Amino acid sequence: MRNIKLTIEYDGKAYLGWQRLGDSDKTIQGKLEGVLSRMTDETIEITGSGRTDAGAHAKGQVANFKTSSTMKLANMVEFLNRYLPRDIVVIKAQEAAERFHSRYNAKGKKYTYNVWTNEIPTTFNRYYSYHYPQHLDTAKMKEACELLVGEHDFLGFSSLKKSKKSTVRTIKELSIERDGSMMQITFVGDGFLYNMVRIIVGTILEVGSGKMELAEIEEIFASGVRQGAGETVPSHGLFLDEVYYN
Amino acid sequence: MRNIKLTIEYDGKAYLGWQRLGDSDKTIQGKLEGVLSRMTDETIEITGSGRTDAGAHAKGQVANFKTSSTMKLANMVEFLNRYLPRDIVVIKAQEAAERFHSRYNAKGKKYTYNVWTNEIPTTFNRYYSYHYPQHLDTAKMKEACELLVGEHDFLGFSSLKKSKKSTVRTIKELSIERDGSMMQITFVGDGFLYNMVRIIVGTILEVGSGKMELAEIEEIFASGVRQGAGETVPSHGLFLDEVYYN
Repeated sequence: MRNIKLTIEYDGKAYLGWQRLGDSDKTIQGKLEGVLSRMTDETIEITGSGRTDAGAHAKGQVANFKTSSTMKLANMVEFLNRYLPRDIVVIKAQEAAERFHSRYNAKGKKYTYNVWTNEIPTTFNRYYSYHYPQHLDTAKMKEACELLVGEHDFLGFSSLKKSKKSTVRTIKELSIERDGSMMQITFVGDGFLYNMVRIIVGTILEVGSGKMELAEIEEIFASGVRQGAGETVPSHGLFLDEVYYN
Repeated sequence: MRNIKLTIEYDGKAYLGWQRLGDSDKTIQGKLEGVLSRMTDETIEITGSGRTDAGAHAKGQVANFKTSSTMKLANMVEFLNRYLPRDIVVIKAQEAAERFHSRYNAKGKKYTYNVWTNEIPTTFNRYYSYHYPQHLDTAKMKEACELLVGEHDFLGFSSLKKSKKSTVRTIKELSIERDGSMMQITFVGDGFLYNMVRIIVGTILEVGSGKMELAEIEEIFASGVRQGAGETVPSHGLFLDEVYYN
């Protein structure tokens, strides 16, 4: 059996997220499995590096699947992009080691979140950014980033109630860039809890707009209580940019 | 009567173009006039700086309309962006001189055309660029730009058969930039004939992919015959970026 690793870009606007849900046609995984099964004449199941939420996007999601097909990689890419809907594109197909598992072997991920800060809405980024027309104190937001970066128990910045598994994660990079009215918040870390990126963005925005003090971030770490953190910002500003492997 | 000048951004994907067509709801002008009429309780007709094609986009279309409404400009912008569909955004509203006419007074325009050159399609720019996966000789394309820039009779680079009016225009700037797989061709000129931008892009692409020789550009200028020029590339790569006034 071959083990094929795919790198995938998708516009999540029309989908219920990555993970297949019963027979629903409205998931990225479901769409990919449908076309892969047709391509190989086998029943293909793919494993993603992780789920992405309904409406969230990816520029570099990674998934793998096993097949006994002898089709060349380049022909696979061509077939997939011909038959997939235009909002899902397979960027790359590679042979992977037999034991490669796109979720278990992932060493880290990069996400970006786009915030449109102008009072006037954006047309071209309306599905790819969160409209948050507030005056934002960028310097304060960068101080918040410094508090959040590093190794912490992020339970209070997730949608988990409690967890038997460890909720300690390391954010290696958390940075903010502005290009005109667009603000981009970038996360690189070894792993992210459920809704962690969206809750941290919400928290940073509340700090930037003066609704939250920096000291509250330390309190949330101490208490592990999610209520203190900012709102969960909408999924349509979120992009999974890259998944890292050794 | 006040004369109000609007600057408008729109995603043309869902529309039949700028110009109102009978009762059709599927034009930018029609949508704007509908919301403006509701806003002022008058029957508003707007004048655009020029038409844009079905599927083409704008980042800075300009239009003006007369009204006796006393509404503040900021409130107009707010009303319009609240009730317009999200693929049309009014960026700015300004008081204009009584005699200001967005078409007659336009001194020039800037257009850009996006070409996606990678064999792998693009998801996020699929509605905003033309997929042309060919090896392109950028140096040769720039030579073509040098032949096209300046004052010429562009009849052979338009969809006009013949014209009683002058078909002489001046292209002040014609440049090509690449950012990874995306190529952007920028036009600045005093005016553009019907389909002129799209035919020139088609011509430059045929030069870049080796289907046409540079010498043929001179022949088209000499003969004024459109058949010699490149294909009319699709409208969805085209953006009206700016309209210039004194």
